[in-house]
Amino acid sequence: MNRVFPHRFYSAALATLAAFTCVLAQAAGPLESWNDGPSKQAIVDFVTKTTTAGSPDFVPPAERIATFDQDGTLWVEHPMYSFLMYALDRVPELAKAKPELKNVEPFKTVLSGNRKAIAKLTLPDLEKIIAATFTGMPVDDFNAEVSKWMASARDPRWKRPYTELVYQPMQEVLQYLRANGYKTYIVTGGGQDFVRVYSEAAYGIPPEQVVGTAGATKYGYGKDGKPFLTKEAKLLLNDNDAGKPEGIHLMIGRRPHAAFGNSTGDKQMLEYTKAGDGARLSLILLHDDAKREYAYGPATGLPDTKVGTFTQTLYDEAKKQGWIVVSMKDDWKRVFAFEE
Amino acid sequence: MNRVFPHRFYSAALATLAAFTCVLAQAAGPLESWNDGPSKQAIVDFVTKTTTAGSPDFVPPAERIATFDQDGTLWVEHPMYSFLMYALDRVPELAKAKPELKNVEPFKTVLSGNRKAIAKLTLPDLEKIIAATFTGMPVDDFNAEVSKWMASARDPRWKRPYTELVYQPMQEVLQYLRANGYKTYIVTGGGQDFVRVYSEAAYGIPPEQVVGTAGATKYGYGKDGKPFLTKEAKLLLNDNDAGKPEGIHLMIGRRPHAAFGNSTGDKQMLEYTKAGDGARLSLILLHDDAKREYAYGPATGLPDTKVGTFTQTLYDEAKKQGWIVVSMKDDWKRVFAFEE
Repeated sequence: MNRVFPHRFYSAALATLAAFTCVLAQAAGPLESWNDGPSKQAIVDFVTKTTTAGSPDFVPPAERIATFDQDGTLWVEHPMYSFLMYALDRVPELAKAKPELKNVEPFKTVLSGNRKAIAKLTLPDLEKIIAATFTGMPVDDFNAEVSKWMASARDPRWKRPYTELVYQPMQEVLQYLRANGYKTYIVTGGGQDFVRVYSEAAYGIPPEQVVGTAGATKYGYGKDGKPFLTKEAKLLLNDNDAGKPEGIHLMIGRRPHAAFGNSTGDKQMLEYTKAGDGARLSLILLHDDAKREYAYGPATGLPDTKVGTFTQTLYDEAKKQGWIVVSMKDDWKRVFAFEE
Repeated sequence: MNRVFPHRFYSAALATLAAFTCVLAQAAGPLESWNDGPSKQAIVDFVTKTTTAGSPDFVPPAERIATFDQDGTLWVEHPMYSFLMYALDRVPELAKAKPELKNVEPFKTVLSGNRKAIAKLTLPDLEKIIAATFTGMPVDDFNAEVSKWMASARDPRWKRPYTELVYQPMQEVLQYLRANGYKTYIVTGGGQDFVRVYSEAAYGIPPEQVVGTAGATKYGYGKDGKPFLTKEAKLLLNDNDAGKPEGIHLMIGRRPHAAFGNSTGDKQMLEYTKAGDGARLSLILLHDDAKREYAYGPATGLPDTKVGTFTQTLYDEAKKQGWIVVSMKDDWKRVFAFEE
């Protein structure tokens, strides 16, 4: 019909169709990357009964708090937590400023670049590296360094920025809860200041809704007389295990109505949440998808030796306490937004 | 005309008129208990330039943070901080549970009821009383006790619940900021858990937006196997002086764009706020209204000896740094909502 602008015409028609399809997709439901089944149903049931006026389980909007572990719950935690990756990557720069570290362990091993030796670093070794790379500098400098690193670092398997390795189905849970009046919080064993740098861009969660392992800061004045804060080595909150409900009390002051985790470090947060009155949702993610992501914990049949993962003991606890166990393999249509 | 329902007719007409008057009152401005003048103008100018799209000082909604000291800034702090009133009132009950305290100072003095002796208690004495009445109990028990006390306690001068002694002009500042997308926080030297009990009802500020002096809690299990948190004596944050910007970093993670205080304990928060980029508002309240409230600090002409009040030194600092100094006597049309 239109001989002058046929291409433009078809483009416009396609755009309209695309927009229409998008509306249809949204209308299809709030958790579109989830397969229908008991896990998805449990989330929808929980939200429905806590937000429907007149429901015996109705929760006033001001009290709608949902807390999410980060590593392994909102994004990939293998082969290593990204805040540890950051700490290791920072060591060479640190050694430039403090050359004496070149002959001191565990920095010497990290600087050697010997991957096998690095993989064998102990927890106290890693704590030394974290202390050296996360403290002793102005807050603003630390934030700038993390921001720079996040923009350039790539995950070893997918070769993508870490912030692209967020789980699309969990993003939909965050959005679904927020659309229903829930305040969504990250409650992570990772560094609070570290996660706050990218939480808004990656998850739509503002810095003030990130609770994490936190150290003290010290107020002081620069040479120009301007006040600034310096990150100190003194630990205020170890936000793992019992530290999660303790951190929730410190930073939020209310018991969550919903909590999401994936490891033994989340046990106390999940049981604390579930022990509240009325409807409460505790959900735990089982990494059983070696093809699309990773399989570890009970999915491997290995004994309960690995710290910080989903053990068989935790699996049994989940079943006993009525937590929802999500199978990444069975419950999720896709894992990442970049999948087709 | 209508002989059957004349009374009902006039009632309806009056209701319409009342509603119309109400609209007019709202239209009169956002800070109606403030007299026109430089203080009110400074608040309006700050909000206008930080929230008007295209303004060089525009602040994105997610970054709009305003912090308020509580005692003496949002409500009356004389003759004694209400959390201290609570602590003293709790001592008899504490002595019932632990009779050995009856012969131990400073509890003995408090139990004597001798007002002159109580007024002479030292800061270390008060700290002992606070530690004994604020810690060592389950969080839920503490909250229930504070809630009960708040409902029954009366201020010695006005004979009203403390929560009625909030400053109406400051309530209007809170509402005005929130209406313009600011998140309002309390940042108080008082007990964080104490203030969280009534902050939502008194100020419309939810518990998670209260930063205060905070102790650790300990996660544990009751005889029924249910998890609960106990308040411990270990101090995590002394939210006074430098502790205010440090607490703001810990709990919020952003520098405020506006801060409100009234004493030397707020100095660092006010200077930290003012030192940020772009438009920042630091405001300090001068208690110079002995008739409607109290006059203390520089208004009295007394030397800088009283801790925790607005000293002459702080007044000079405010002028030097460009903080707004609000005169309660001159800037406020009324102090309390219950005034005519």
